[in-house]
Amino acid sequence: MSFDHVSDSTVRRLSNYLRVLDELGKEGEAVVSSQGLAERAGVTSAQVRKDLSYFGTFGRRGRGYEVAVLESEVRGILGLDRRWRVGLVGAGNIGSALFAYKEFARQGFDIVAVFDDAADRIGAKLGELEIRPMDDFERVCRERGVEIGVIATPAKDAQAIADRMARVGLRGILNFAPRKLFVPDAVALRTVNMAIELESLSFALAQDEEKRHGRRRFPAG
Amino acid sequence: MSFDHVSDSTVRRLSNYLRVLDELGKEGEAVVSSQGLAERAGVTSAQVRKDLSYFGTFGRRGRGYEVAVLESEVRGILGLDRRWRVGLVGAGNIGSALFAYKEFARQGFDIVAVFDDAADRIGAKLGELEIRPMDDFERVCRERGVEIGVIATPAKDAQAIADRMARVGLRGILNFAPRKLFVPDAVALRTVNMAIELESLSFALAQDEEKRHGRRRFPAG
Repeated sequence: MSFDHVSDSTVRRLSNYLRVLDELGKEGEAVVSSQGLAERAGVTSAQVRKDLSYFGTFGRRGRGYEVAVLESEVRGILGLDRRWRVGLVGAGNIGSALFAYKEFARQGFDIVAVFDDAADRIGAKLGELEIRPMDDFERVCRERGVEIGVIATPAKDAQAIADRMARVGLRGILNFAPRKLFVPDAVALRTVNMAIELESLSFALAQDEEKRHGRRRFPAG
Repeated sequence: MSFDHVSDSTVRRLSNYLRVLDELGKEGEAVVSSQGLAERAGVTSAQVRKDLSYFGTFGRRGRGYEVAVLESEVRGILGLDRRWRVGLVGAGNIGSALFAYKEFARQGFDIVAVFDDAADRIGAKLGELEIRPMDDFERVCRERGVEIGVIATPAKDAQAIADRMARVGLRGILNFAPRKLFVPDAVALRTVNMAIELESLSFALAQDEEKRHGRRRFPAG
């Protein structure tokens, strides 16, 4: 079933429900009401029912949702019931952390190739994988059937790498470089931008500081 | 100057402009037009002018913005012209990567205390800092003047840690645990949720897959 009409906000809420369902399962809960799911997820129960109704997923009236069943349905909707072959570019701090991040594999993302252009990293190993130079990028992507690219490089290199990923036919890119990237429509792009969250936090704190201390940091007008 | 009327989207665009200005500076550009800034940032030039006008920041007509001056102004608006004392909870993969992430310190966030409850981590060092048990959390936060908490723990522990951070008077929390957290209004909370980006990417790819192969993965209705 195609869900073209489903907004990105709905998909993000589904992710949030999935996390709650996973927790409920671990706590041994077999059934959850839309109200119970809503409270943990921080939304209204009407929102929960609306979001799930897009996908033809209904709990039994007065009984709620079976946790395991709903979790499995949501995983299916999110495409987490299959595995994706991932090529990681950048074996520095962020790349290495990602490689070691168990949740990444648990969600079906298998890193099958790692690339870096730093002389002291090429040829070294990340887990079982040898770090390859970017010169080999296109060939290795084809050989290993890479479908998704992860960019964990400095910002200045990110666009050129995204261009190569699009050209070699990768279908999705997860970008950790703090830079807005431009890709063709056929490539799905998502960005994990820690810098933006940090700066949004910093802005909120600076505003709060001024309220407390009445400091004027900028000339008026 | 208080910027209460400034939306979070505007703040996020400012972050993006800051990245572009940083790049332009490194490339040796002294001046940029709103059009030039807009193109690199992937927005319209009207948007750039509107965003900057909130802050009383105007380029000279027909001349554009001085890159270094505008960069410094935007850094000031975002509160990046001061330093924040950060307590990091969780010294696993993500916590360690963050600790080593130079951008974090460059943006004014100094990690001054690290906490973890894993027996094999307590007492070990992260850089110059000894990893402290959570039993010491409140005392160490007070002693070291911690202002911001970073949560890099498993999801199940995150809410209890956020509660302790709020109780001890921290003013901001940056959450890396894949879980929605609830904090008092006085605490600024931002979340870096890699799981949500991954699942949004996975959803987009699964949809794309169905279009290509015409697979129906869910019963209709």
